Amino acid sequence: MGIKAFQDYYPDDLAHCYGCGRLNESGYQIKSYWDGIESVSHFKPKAYHIAVPGFVYGGLIASLIDCHSTGTAAAAKYKEEKRGMDSLPPIRFLTASLKVDYLKPTPIDSVLELRATVKEMKGRKVIIETNLIANGQICARGEVITVQIPEGIKIGQGQIKGQK
Amino acid sequence: MGIKAFQDYYPDDLAHCYGCGRLNESGYQIKSYWDGIESVSHFKPKAYHIAVPGFVYGGLIASLIDCHSTGTAAAAKYKEEKRGMDSLPPIRFLTASLKVDYLKPTPIDSVLELRATVKEMKGRKVIIETNLIANGQICARGEVITVQIPEGIKIGQGQIKGQK
Repeated sequence: MGIKAFQDYYPDDLAHCYGCGRLNESGYQIKSYWDGIESVSHFKPKAYHIAVPGFVYGGLIASLIDCHSTGTAAAAKYKEEKRGMDSLPPIRFLTASLKVDYLKPTPIDSVLELRATVKEMKGRKVIIETNLIANGQICARGEVITVQIPEGIKIGQGQIKGQK
Repeated sequence: MGIKAFQDYYPDDLAHCYGCGRLNESGYQIKSYWDGIESVSHFKPKAYHIAVPGFVYGGLIASLIDCHSTGTAAAAKYKEEKRGMDSLPPIRFLTASLKVDYLKPTPIDSVLELRATVKEMKGRKVIIETNLIANGQICARGEVITVQIPEGIKIGQGQIKGQK
C-alpha cells in the first residue's frame, strides 16, 4: 500500500476531471504528493502529445500545471486547517486564472516533473507557482490563481448551483 | 471544396501538433479561419473532456486558446507581409506565454467558439487575445504571447537547432 495522492481523496462526484480525476478513464489521472513544503507529480507524455516532433505540446503542459496546482491548493488548505484530507466537508479548488511561461522546449522522451509551492493563501484564494521540469531543467513556469469552491455549492450533473 | 483553414497550410513537418496538427490523428485538429479582422474556430468537446460533470476541462480550454492563437499569429503575419499562406518560406509561431482567465463555467454540451484578435505585432512577437464563447457567452479569455520561429531554424526529429 503506497501513500495516497491528493487526487485519491477527491470525492467521487469531483473525481471526473480529464486532468486529475481518478474516475476519468480517458484522462491523464495525475497524482500529486507532498515533498516537504513542495508538492510533486510525475507524468510521462504519450508519443502523440507533441507540439513539433520531439517536444511536448504546450496545451498538455498547461493542463498538468493547472491540475497539479488546484490539487496542491486543496492539500495546502487541509494542512492550514489541520485537517486530514479524508475529513469532511471536502475542500476543492477551481482555477480562476492560469499563466504559463514556456521557457524551453520540453523533450517528449522524458518523465515530466511538476513542483509546486504555495505563493499566497488569502481566504478562499490560493496562488500556486508550479514549475515543470524535464531532465533537470525548468522548461515551463506556471502561476495559477485558484479559488475554493464554497461549501453549499453543489457541483455536478451539468449544473453549478447554490444549495437550496 | 471549402476554404482552407490556417492549419491546412502548415508544412508537413510542423503539422503534428496535438492541438492543431492535421497529421496528428490522436489530436484535436482545430481549424481556424478569418472572419473579418477576427479569426474564428469551432470545437465540440468530447464527453470526457470535463472538469466536473457538465463543464469543460480548463486544460482543454487553454489548449484550444493556445493553438488558435499561434495559428492566428501566423495568419496575421502572412497578411502583414501581403503573402499567401501557401507561399514560402512558411511562417510559424510558438507560444512564449499563455494566460487564461476562466470567467464562467463552460458547458460541455455546446460547440465552443474561439474568437481571436491581434492585440500587438512587433517584430517577431505577436500578442493575440482569444475569447472562448459557449452559448453566446464569453466563458474564458486568453492572452497569448507568440514568437515567430526564426527562419533557418530546423524544427523536428526531436531537435530544435540552428541551420548549419
